[in-house]
Amino acid sequence: MEAREARKLLEQVASGDVTVDQALARFQTAPFSDLGYAKVDHHRALAQGVSEVIYGEGKTAGQILGICRSMESAGQKRVLITRLDSQKAQALSPDLDLEYFELPRVGLIGGMPQPDGAGYVAVACAGTSDLYAAEEAALTAEALGSRVLRLYDVGVAGIHRLLAHSDEIARARAVVAVAGMEGALPSVVAGLASCPVIAVPTSVGYGASFGGVAALLAMLNSCASGISVVNIDNGFGAGYLASMIDHIGVVE
Amino acid sequence: MEAREARKLLEQVASGDVTVDQALARFQTAPFSDLGYAKVDHHRALAQGVSEVIYGEGKTAGQILGICRSMESAGQKRVLITRLDSQKAQALSPDLDLEYFELPRVGLIGGMPQPDGAGYVAVACAGTSDLYAAEEAALTAEALGSRVLRLYDVGVAGIHRLLAHSDEIARARAVVAVAGMEGALPSVVAGLASCPVIAVPTSVGYGASFGGVAALLAMLNSCASGISVVNIDNGFGAGYLASMIDHIGVVE
Amino acid sequence: MEAREARKLLEQVASGDVTVDQALARFQTAPFSDLGYAKVDHHRALAQGVSEVIYGEGKTAGQILGICRSMESAGQKRVLITRLDSQKAQALSPDLDLEYFELPRVGLIGGMPQPDGAGYVAVACAGTSDLYAAEEAALTAEALGSRVLRLYDVGVAGIHRLLAHSDEIARARAVVAVAGMEGALPSVVAGLASCPVIAVPTSVGYGASFGGVAALLAMLNSCASGISVVNIDNGFGAGYLASMIDHIGVVE
Amino acid sequence: MEAREARKLLEQVASGDVTVDQALARFQTAPFSDLGYAKVDHHRALAQGVSEVIYGEGKTAGQILGICRSMESAGQKRVLITRLDSQKAQALSPDLDLEYFELPRVGLIGGMPQPDGAGYVAVACAGTSDLYAAEEAALTAEALGSRVLRLYDVGVAGIHRLLAHSDEIARARAVVAVAGMEGALPSVVAGLASCPVIAVPTSVGYGASFGGVAALLAMLNSCASGISVVNIDNGFGAGYLASMIDHIGVVE
Amino acid sequence: MEAREARKLLEQVASGDVTVDQALARFQTAPFSDLGYAKVDHHRALAQGVSEVIYGEGKTAGQILGICRSMESAGQKRVLITRLDSQKAQALSPDLDLEYFELPRVGLIGGMPQPDGAGYVAVACAGTSDLYAAEEAALTAEALGSRVLRLYDVGVAGIHRLLAHSDEIARARAVVAVAGMEGALPSVVAGLASCPVIAVPTSVGYGASFGGVAALLAMLNSCASGISVVNIDNGFGAGYLASMIDHIGVVE
Amino acid sequence: MEAREARKLLEQVASGDVTVDQALARFQTAPFSDLGYAKVDHHRALAQGVSEVIYGEGKTAGQILGICRSMESAGQKRVLITRLDSQKAQALSPDLDLEYFELPRVGLIGGMPQPDGAGYVAVACAGTSDLYAAEEAALTAEALGSRVLRLYDVGVAGIHRLLAHSDEIARARAVVAVAGMEGALPSVVAGLASCPVIAVPTSVGYGASFGGVAALLAMLNSCASGISVVNIDNGFGAGYLASMIDHIGVVE
Amino acid sequence: MEAREARKLLEQVASGDVTVDQALARFQTAPFSDLGYAKVDHHRALAQGVSEVIYGEGKTAGQILGICRSMESAGQKRVLITRLDSQKAQALSPDLDLEYFELPRVGLIGGMPQPDGAGYVAVACAGTSDLYAAEEAALTAEALGSRVLRLYDVGVAGIHRLLAHSDEIARARAVVAVAGMEGALPSVVAGLASCPVIAVPTSVGYGASFGGVAALLAMLNSCASGISVVNIDNGFGAGYLASMIDHIGVVE
Amino acid sequence: MEAREARKLLEQVASGDVTVDQALARFQTAPFSDLGYAKVDHHRALAQGVSEVIYGEGKTAGQILGICRSMESAGQKRVLITRLDSQKAQALSPDLDLEYFELPRVGLIGGMPQPDGAGYVAVACAGTSDLYAAEEAALTAEALGSRVLRLYDVGVAGIHRLLAHSDEIARARAVVAVAGMEGALPSVVAGLASCPVIAVPTSVGYGASFGGVAALLAMLNSCASGISVVNIDNGFGAGYLASMIDHIGVVE
Repeated sequence: MEAREARKLLEQVASGDVTVDQALARFQTAPFSDLGYAKVDHHRALAQGVSEVIYGEGKTAGQILGICRSMESAGQKRVLITRLDSQKAQALSPDLDLEYFELPRVGLIGGMPQPDGAGYVAVACAGTSDLYAAEEAALTAEALGSRVLRLYDVGVAGIHRLLAHSDEIARARAVVAVAGMEGALPSVVAGLASCPVIAVPTSVGYGASFGGVAALLAMLNSCASGISVVNIDNGFGAGYLASMIDHIGVVE
Repeated sequence: MEAREARKLLEQVASGDVTVDQALARFQTAPFSDLGYAKVDHHRALAQGVSEVIYGEGKTAGQILGICRSMESAGQKRVLITRLDSQKAQALSPDLDLEYFELPRVGLIGGMPQPDGAGYVAVACAGTSDLYAAEEAALTAEALGSRVLRLYDVGVAGIHRLLAHSDEIARARAVVAVAGMEGALPSVVAGLASCPVIAVPTSVGYGASFGGVAALLAMLNSCASGISVVNIDNGFGAGYLASMIDHIGVVE
Repeated sequence: MEAREARKLLEQVASGDVTVDQALARFQTAPFSDLGYAKVDHHRALAQGVSEVIYGEGKTAGQILGICRSMESAGQKRVLITRLDSQKAQALSPDLDLEYFELPRVGLIGGMPQPDGAGYVAVACAGTSDLYAAEEAALTAEALGSRVLRLYDVGVAGIHRLLAHSDEIARARAVVAVAGMEGALPSVVAGLASCPVIAVPTSVGYGASFGGVAALLAMLNSCASGISVVNIDNGFGAGYLASMIDHIGVVE
Repeated sequence: MEAREARKLLEQVASGDVTVDQALARFQTAPFSDLGYAKVDHHRALAQGVSEVIYGEGKTAGQILGICRSMESAGQKRVLITRLDSQKAQALSPDLDLEYFELPRVGLIGGMPQPDGAGYVAVACAGTSDLYAAEEAALTAEALGSRVLRLYDVGVAGIHRLLAHSDEIARARAVVAVAGMEGALPSVVAGLASCPVIAVPTSVGYGASFGGVAALLAMLNSCASGISVVNIDNGFGAGYLASMIDHIGVVE
Repeated sequence: MEAREARKLLEQVASGDVTVDQALARFQTAPFSDLGYAKVDHHRALAQGVSEVIYGEGKTAGQILGICRSMESAGQKRVLITRLDSQKAQALSPDLDLEYFELPRVGLIGGMPQPDGAGYVAVACAGTSDLYAAEEAALTAEALGSRVLRLYDVGVAGIHRLLAHSDEIARARAVVAVAGMEGALPSVVAGLASCPVIAVPTSVGYGASFGGVAALLAMLNSCASGISVVNIDNGFGAGYLASMIDHIGVVE
Repeated sequence: MEAREARKLLEQVASGDVTVDQALARFQTAPFSDLGYAKVDHHRALAQGVSEVIYGEGKTAGQILGICRSMESAGQKRVLITRLDSQKAQALSPDLDLEYFELPRVGLIGGMPQPDGAGYVAVACAGTSDLYAAEEAALTAEALGSRVLRLYDVGVAGIHRLLAHSDEIARARAVVAVAGMEGALPSVVAGLASCPVIAVPTSVGYGASFGGVAALLAMLNSCASGISVVNIDNGFGAGYLASMIDHIGVVE
Repeated sequence: MEAREARKLLEQVASGDVTVDQALARFQTAPFSDLGYAKVDHHRALAQGVSEVIYGEGKTAGQILGICRSMESAGQKRVLITRLDSQKAQALSPDLDLEYFELPRVGLIGGMPQPDGAGYVAVACAGTSDLYAAEEAALTAEALGSRVLRLYDVGVAGIHRLLAHSDEIARARAVVAVAGMEGALPSVVAGLASCPVIAVPTSVGYGASFGGVAALLAMLNSCASGISVVNIDNGFGAGYLASMIDHIGVVE
Repeated sequence: MEAREARKLLEQVASGDVTVDQALARFQTAPFSDLGYAKVDHHRALAQGVSEVIYGEGKTAGQILGICRSMESAGQKRVLITRLDSQKAQALSPDLDLEYFELPRVGLIGGMPQPDGAGYVAVACAGTSDLYAAEEAALTAEALGSRVLRLYDVGVAGIHRLLAHSDEIARARAVVAVAGMEGALPSVVAGLASCPVIAVPTSVGYGASFGGVAALLAMLNSCASGISVVNIDNGFGAGYLASMIDHIGVVE
């Protein structure tokens, strides 16, 4: 509860418009719906700008449906469901108006919004195998109202493929750089960019890639400035953050 | 070299104002000074907004002095030197007008600038022992023109200490959340913030903290959105990125 | 064998009521039934208060049945079987009066006892995906005679959901705090509690969660006091310990 | 703030005894003293039973003195300072009435209290080299009002040394089991005990002990019930928890 | 673009044979075909000697077919496809003239070339289980024009099996030494060889082999000179490098 | 080739009984059969006492059959095949007179020999789930001519179950101690034994057992003397070594 | 207490020669001297053949002296002190008749005994830097009555240096193989030996040797039979075990 | 011993020119000098081209001197000593004509030879802090007869600094690419090179660089072809291998 709200409530107590018990309840009651298996957090929507994201992994189709219904009844139009495998997507289809993206395993209810950010988000990935994470980032940013420029298969071993896009990188509001294996892309990209670069290590690779650890460590140790890192395969987190940056100065 | 510059150069070749050899040299010559032990990158200043940062670790006082001189002669007024131990700082003092901050081991030439960001950067840290990294972040952001709000010793085990600053976190342009040990601060902070949260794990702790790995992993796995992570003890990287975000919409 | 028993036995030897060979046998014979594949430990029941727990993983349905039968013939009424997959549960159903809980993979013979602890055990978990471990803890504590208060989906990224239960945490006899990903819940909970907090890291997460290692490390490094940690996904161990604490001062 | 307090405050607002601004301030103000480098948490004392513990590592003698003074002025008589090296202890001696224990690096202000727990805490350690952590646990428990029984050098390779103390273990209210190297002590102890066993891995060992990781893993994987684990070398945490358990049913 | 090419282009601009816009396009256009999901790099062929290798893992049969067609239209006769599982190989068979090697999962279009290296590449492996990686190396080297001598099942525990081939090792142009488990083969081989030894750790083993990490570490720590290491199971990389060395002095 | 053999050969060269070329061939030819996919090592039989062990993992039924046939033709009567899954065992049954042990996945050709060691090998294991590795060790030792005493389910959490066998441990020629989870059994066993104890960590456990790493580390760090360790789940290695020790003084 | 002893004691109780209280005391009293900081275990001497080894690390010179005196008064003539740094050795010199070996940091009281084993122990090490651990093994075996053959600097990269000693390895009763870096020596040695090979990884190396982990893993994964492994740098453990094997059939 | 030599020896035995005992001795004697602490391997010189390298770490100045003297008496003119700290260098100075390079800790006896390779070795490093390893590589290659081109401070975050040297990289016979932190340099370099690239990870970095592990993993996972990797900080190994490649076709 923000200070303004608290002050108003206290003034109502002072004026007698609200009883002590009512106020106490207000101070104690958290603004979420309790579904038993989940507390749907309508308050967080206010605090973070979007409440409509569901992490699908480890939830049954039934639980996801219940959460969507609860959100709907709270007035949410658009819901993004990440880590939604195709089986659950199929199970949800009769009940929800769901657009499903198979490669990044993303479901969308309510359609893509018109972009309303200040610029665009560039999503670059090193190889074809990294597309799943890059698309998760791109779709997330689009779902949150950002225009997205995709720069795919621009790994550093063929550096001219990346350099051909120097200008587009230089003009972006935020860059998401996705790479597995040696994870070198973000370092080079950050040298070309003048905006925040969000590095996404992927689990692409074999042997000593250790499921993305090699790429993760490389990105954490980047010698370039302006880079920060999210979890392995966390395209959603990067897209979310990039879109947040793309809306700075817009929503305020 | 940007497209515009390249076009102009090519037009000069076409018009005969620039010879083929001169143009070739321009295309081949990188815009940096070669000191032998280091290539001082004047070009990067243009690309990334600041060229005046020197990573002091693993450089001798003599090398640092040389790089500062080279920067100075290229017109740089303000230089930030990170990871500068007190011995080197003392060695540099006679030759440079250096302000030295002992705890975060930061040196500054040219004084702090007037803040010119769009808002302020909040730097929160969990415990007294994390101050060195928090101050590195804070001083970096200030040196790059951001106003900084320090929220220190607000670890999650005494959650009310942090909640007392909810409003200040909610209004920040960017938050740097610094923590060692279990590294839980960024998750809670991100729930209170509506801006990017940059998480800095510190090497504070013992035993199974593994020099900051526990905090690093916690931050990478945060269940909150809007968080990204930098390397262990990388206060500089977080401050740099936070200030970059604080200037979005301002410098453009 | 306790001192009293040993003294009595020795006195019987001295008095001739027990022969040397009989006494030797008593000193040498361990108080367990040997089924070949397992030694069912009737002695441990005395030492630890419950002998009726079977760890189902890596045992065949036949072996579990054999152990149950042996326990039954030794007078055990109630047996808790953990890590019991649904196939084995089904295989055991014709032979045993088994109540089966699918999510936590727990089987119970003999029904839940009346709570006889001194207070109640609070079981809190961070997210919906952690329910399996939280329920294993809750059912274990209930099977051992504790009243359990479930506080689910109270992760720290939406701190008000947890704070809404501050009082219930403050009044508990023991708290089990279950979390995957960044594992921050126990630290915040311990700040609100005045009783032992048993932290259970879960394997929920992806990428750099490393199957629960991130949460485990976070919990081991908690800056709060009164916390101890059990193995990843070890809901049973936490529930067992919490119930043990809940019965302190009661059973003695 | 607890519900009772909040209700009283709201009633005062309703009755006009407290103004809205005063109440708002109360709701917003956290109950701690801000020393700049640390927020001394007088509230936590209420919540957790002791506020008088200072973690000395990473704090200067000056900072520790400041915190002690602040605590003193808030009425605290007894302060335990852990991880206090002998140099700082010496530096603090002129200003504080400090009793210093060199091996476990513990300082105590205000003297040991009379034991007021319900039973006693047994502190067992495997080898002579583990004494530093065992003593940290023992002194902590004593400082918090528990009677402590020390069982030292009872490692499992000479199992009869441990078995000679079976009765004393069986009658304890809580056992702290301290071991480095293979960390097997807690498993055997838990088989002999009927109370919670808190396992403390130590960094004693070499080679593949990896600074205590081998012992830590062994303890987390114990096949015995009733065991939980704290961080490597965290004697304080174990002693704190053991004393908390020793006071269950007493302080309430 | 190499300097010669750049000079020529610039001269054409100077002479007016090429317009500024054409030159700009040349400087900006990267020499690859963009298939959407992949940028087929015809330039790299020039730079590295072979462009005809496709890493099959994580690409659909359709994508592989598309890339092959693009290469074909660019004039490539011979294409090596690594990490191609048998299902994809079967799916590609109707459309491509593909020779398939099941054990190393390698596909070849265009047939094996005549060897044109300066000597031969020896491929040694420690055990029968390592054959898959050894064959990937051998086939790669053959596809790139090297004669290959296979020395299989020559692990160091039966050292005379290896010593029987001392001469053949001593006369090789490059040796690929493949081993899992303790990974000792390359060290012994390097003592017998007078040419570069490329060590390939395999994921063969169990328990503390950690999927090849034990062998990888052994090879990185070899006390013999002239050894370098590639990723676990990276037979391709070793075969590629060995053939490159085999062609030194030939292609130049 | 041993010195005596070499001397004899050289004497024959000197006397002209053997030509230079024949001797050279003898010195160069290794005493093994090359099956292409494997070099069957008849020489090793002499060097190590048994040549009749085949590691079945990663070999096809056909390859195993081929190796058996080659051994048979070289005069081997008894062959032990480890890590032989039941499918391959079934495939080999029509062609070989194979006795198959399912739990430890061991196949035996030629039947168990009469024990001819100096004493007996005790094989102890901590829990029912460790039986597979314990049986691999036991069967191996028996196949190599040792009498084996099985002591199963004697984990340290119920220490009296183990102590009941103190005498049998004290009289063994060699002890194999098998344990997963915390791996404490060998330490306690070694305190009771006066012969070499071979510790076998198993992959039994979950969470922070890391597939046997916890047990492995515990065993490597044992504070007891006379212990050595083999790889995780390497029951064969332990049984082989125990039988070797059991035959010391016998075969010589 | 062994069965015979227990029977005798019980018979004395039956006959009245020993009172119940005396017998009880005997059953309860452990056969060790309690020095406060250590329990000197005179019983273990009987069980394991030597009681005279002190692990010097982490013990003060005073504590070591006390333990030696206690042993002396219990009749011990010969005491081996391992991990004894030169400072402590110097401090002990006036009080004890101590022979000190600096490289392996071993102290010996009572002089080397006449060898009384059945054969000899070969101690091989890979490089000059491994000498400290090899000597710890060699001296330990000698102090326990074994004849030792030292084969130093026989690393596998120059395989002929090792092969020159094939016969001496083939005739040993036990081999200790010491190596750092890639740890390949034991595998090759075991192929030449017909007795147990005890592998000692050393912490010699740099970079990815990780303080001996690379060598440790290599040794655990050896493809040769008859090998077992001790902790990194644990020359003592290997020498102890080798001498134990060397005395099999002798002492019994 | 090579086949030719063996044949000759055998012919001498046949002809009676060499007695059986002499021949036996020849077959048994390894061609090295045994200094007690080291076996100086004169044979390896023949096998590997250089015998004159001493790894100085873990050897005393006296031992190094002894080895040099032994080499000298065997006719060696030039000796390279790596990992030689300045103290030992100083200690050796009076006795040896030693040129000492402080940064890479390399000593050289006999002076630099004239380059006699086929081309040149390019040694590139990412940052100023990596110079120590780059120089170790460069000096090693020079000492072995290669011309070296140094390209220092060309890290990928300022990609144009590296691209300015594209031609020099493209024309090299072998490239050594040295980098710490994220270790991305070799991938980009390999895209520009047409010769083998030897990647050297350095221990430069902090936090999650883990002493060079991050760079090592990145290099092992490089998506570029033609790369192989040596141990962390192993500049010597890379320089040795690069020079070996530089001499292919020359020495033969």
